[in-house]
Amino acid sequence: MNSLTRMRPQQAEIEAAIDELRALLDERLSVNGSVREQHGQDLTWHKGAPPDAVAFARSTEEVAKIVTICAKHKVPVIAFGTGTSLEGHISAVYGGVSIDMSGMNRIVSVHAEDLDCVVEAGVTRLQLNDFLRDTGLFFPIDPGADASLGGMAATRASGTNAVRYGTMRDNVLALTAVMADGTVVKSGGRARKSAAGYDLTRLLVGSEGTLGIITEVTLRLQGIPEAISAGICPFESVDGACDAVILTIQSGIPVARIELLDKLQVQAVNAYSKLDLPEQPTLFLEFHGSDMSVKEQAERFAEIAAECGGGSFDWATRTEDRNRLWTARHNAYYAALALAPGKKGLSTDVCVPISRLADCVRQTREDIEQSGFLAPIVGHVGDGNFHVLLLIDMDDPQDVARGKAFLDRLAARAIAMEGTCTGEHGVGMGKMKYMQAEHGTGLTVMRAVKLALDPDNLMNPGKIIPEGG
Amino acid sequence: MNSLTRMRPQQAEIEAAIDELRALLDERLSVNGSVREQHGQDLTWHKGAPPDAVAFARSTEEVAKIVTICAKHKVPVIAFGTGTSLEGHISAVYGGVSIDMSGMNRIVSVHAEDLDCVVEAGVTRLQLNDFLRDTGLFFPIDPGADASLGGMAATRASGTNAVRYGTMRDNVLALTAVMADGTVVKSGGRARKSAAGYDLTRLLVGSEGTLGIITEVTLRLQGIPEAISAGICPFESVDGACDAVILTIQSGIPVARIELLDKLQVQAVNAYSKLDLPEQPTLFLEFHGSDMSVKEQAERFAEIAAECGGGSFDWATRTEDRNRLWTARHNAYYAALALAPGKKGLSTDVCVPISRLADCVRQTREDIEQSGFLAPIVGHVGDGNFHVLLLIDMDDPQDVARGKAFLDRLAARAIAMEGTCTGEHGVGMGKMKYMQAEHGTGLTVMRAVKLALDPDNLMNPGKIIPEGG
Repeated sequence: MNSLTRMRPQQAEIEAAIDELRALLDERLSVNGSVREQHGQDLTWHKGAPPDAVAFARSTEEVAKIVTICAKHKVPVIAFGTGTSLEGHISAVYGGVSIDMSGMNRIVSVHAEDLDCVVEAGVTRLQLNDFLRDTGLFFPIDPGADASLGGMAATRASGTNAVRYGTMRDNVLALTAVMADGTVVKSGGRARKSAAGYDLTRLLVGSEGTLGIITEVTLRLQGIPEAISAGICPFESVDGACDAVILTIQSGIPVARIELLDKLQVQAVNAYSKLDLPEQPTLFLEFHGSDMSVKEQAERFAEIAAECGGGSFDWATRTEDRNRLWTARHNAYYAALALAPGKKGLSTDVCVPISRLADCVRQTREDIEQSGFLAPIVGHVGDGNFHVLLLIDMDDPQDVARGKAFLDRLAARAIAMEGTCTGEHGVGMGKMKYMQAEHGTGLTVMRAVKLALDPDNLMNPGKIIPEGG
Repeated sequence: MNSLTRMRPQQAEIEAAIDELRALLDERLSVNGSVREQHGQDLTWHKGAPPDAVAFARSTEEVAKIVTICAKHKVPVIAFGTGTSLEGHISAVYGGVSIDMSGMNRIVSVHAEDLDCVVEAGVTRLQLNDFLRDTGLFFPIDPGADASLGGMAATRASGTNAVRYGTMRDNVLALTAVMADGTVVKSGGRARKSAAGYDLTRLLVGSEGTLGIITEVTLRLQGIPEAISAGICPFESVDGACDAVILTIQSGIPVARIELLDKLQVQAVNAYSKLDLPEQPTLFLEFHGSDMSVKEQAERFAEIAAECGGGSFDWATRTEDRNRLWTARHNAYYAALALAPGKKGLSTDVCVPISRLADCVRQTREDIEQSGFLAPIVGHVGDGNFHVLLLIDMDDPQDVARGKAFLDRLAARAIAMEGTCTGEHGVGMGKMKYMQAEHGTGLTVMRAVKLALDPDNLMNPGKIIPEGG
């Protein structure tokens, strides 16, 4: 088996590629320093690296031409959506060309009868939902940021309502991608299911641009529910809240969102969003369905919560009350940052079987306290996925080192519990070092697939699969 | 790129492999003629080929040893579950060793809190559901036959309630597989979601033993619903029935099963199961949920059906009435065969976007009539998937040729409608010839993945990917 290696291309190769790209794209090929910086650095603590050039593509055919030119000169290509990924995915580790997909923002078709739509990769989720508003349909996946749908597919994103609607894995029916040699591949179709060969759609979803560049996606849509109700419920302990979650899922209550905020996060939210929630571990919930079903779901959850040490409820069926609650939840990240002005937030992303969730959160809370961090926790607990926001002084190398050691312990803890180091953020550069522990011999298979589809390691090199081997 | 080719191994190679396998397995290695015949021939019209030997495996480690021995002597390996696959999947096209998984029938663990379980590949779905009975949980995928769960994963099976619970793609959380070189790989974990690298689980699900042999699967389970109600509703036309299906799905009614029987199939069922259903296109439905929700779902469906030319209902909430209906549905295949004693049933499996379903069924019905076939239709219409049962006189070469030509037209029709030639039966030998039309350049990617993971083409050769290229 060949090994997976890459070095920066020679300057002459890059210049030759840029010349050909400029002939193709004219002013849509930029070598401007700040444009390059912006395309190589995400908003996180990961140190980015700028690409040598940024190509603003307008069509699948154009992406294919760009990739073909870069392949000819052995120059890496990195897809760029909105730059909101969290693990250094967009960093041009070995230089190369960033392909900015924001100009590919056409909604190609909406098939209301089939509950699906076809969009170019640069369409963002809010753009799609605005467009869908009059159809009675919506696209449910909500990772927080207004990310591009191609980027969400490439990182296998999810978010608060994956417990009901699944992740990008479940909601991408088909896609178009440009492979390493410039070939355009259409995987899947619009049928709801298929048993026709290898699942290339699922292979490309979550491959973070390392196997191909996704240029178009066919997405499942949902009918906007007749009724939505939301509520919050404080618990005496994180354990009690987790028990309530397990019983809710087990009872088959089709909860649409079920989010945990720990005590510190509730304090942060109260301060930031001017609320007066009881300062206890708290579940935020949302139910979707008919009027009758939503009412029934809420009542059944209330019974479960009461058994698990849940406190008094605050149910909101009015849109404005619901929005107030979920805005506070969505602002949890900023609320947490406000706890320690000047520090950087470092978000973790482990996911474990829900039976292990209370254990994992408790051990992690103890670790946080022993390490002396200020670090609130929020979790998509219906999936067993939670985020610790470590507040780190990036100018203090010791604080950074302690933070990294904490990340290593947390990943190991989740993997030991049959979970994963990343539920929804992806691997990028940041979690590459956990891949061997998590996948074992599976990593060899991933490397073989990568080498088969990208033998020169030009597609977003330095991500997901550790090199060498 | 290398090409995908294989020939029968030399007799000396086969004998050397058999000697080593006998040393490993003793009497669990069989070269008995009828055992070999039975392992190479499924129940369909596909002409099978017997393997050179059958190895009865008892553990993942043993499968790994068998595969390693066969790899050393360049002898093909074919996994065998219950032999209920429908496209010649188990035929030993190039000879080799059939690995019978029926001895790997341990239920390894059930995690009721996490709604999952781990089973060896030879466990059948009825065995699992019997075992689960006292836990309040069940495994929903029901392809009709009491297939092995490893085989169901390998063929990406589904069945009548995929509309509610998804297919094997959605319900296999993790798996263990033996790869072509004998390496044991564990893909995925027990977390509900993960963004940690390439989705090897989904790559192996549906790969029909051509990339690796699945030896263990971790499955999602469901809580047994509090209430189940079923009913049937006759329609004036197939179009009306399809319209009712589309509106039902669009309205977000979480229907658990919604099955179409065309007029000829209803006649067959009446004769076979001694029923007196109105001889019209008919929907069979099932709803799962709380008492209140099931009632509400049924009422909402009734309103939709009335708008679409649906006739009077026959609702059944009593278990025995429900079982009578679903037994009749499950026996549809035998009922259809009874229409023409002595003929063989040839089952098709196209799946199209549901907006195209009525069109596809109508055009197919016209094709059947023009061709002069007796061929009832049943469909998992909530997914856009339907089966034509062509009744063919296998001793009449003209009838067989006309049948094959019909299959080709049907596959082309579905693919032209953005659908697939196979919703749930898989490719095997039978549908390999449609892969180029359905996948285009994607087939080149599949071939590259196959060559990367099985360079000698020893894993179930002659299936899914046409050779050469």
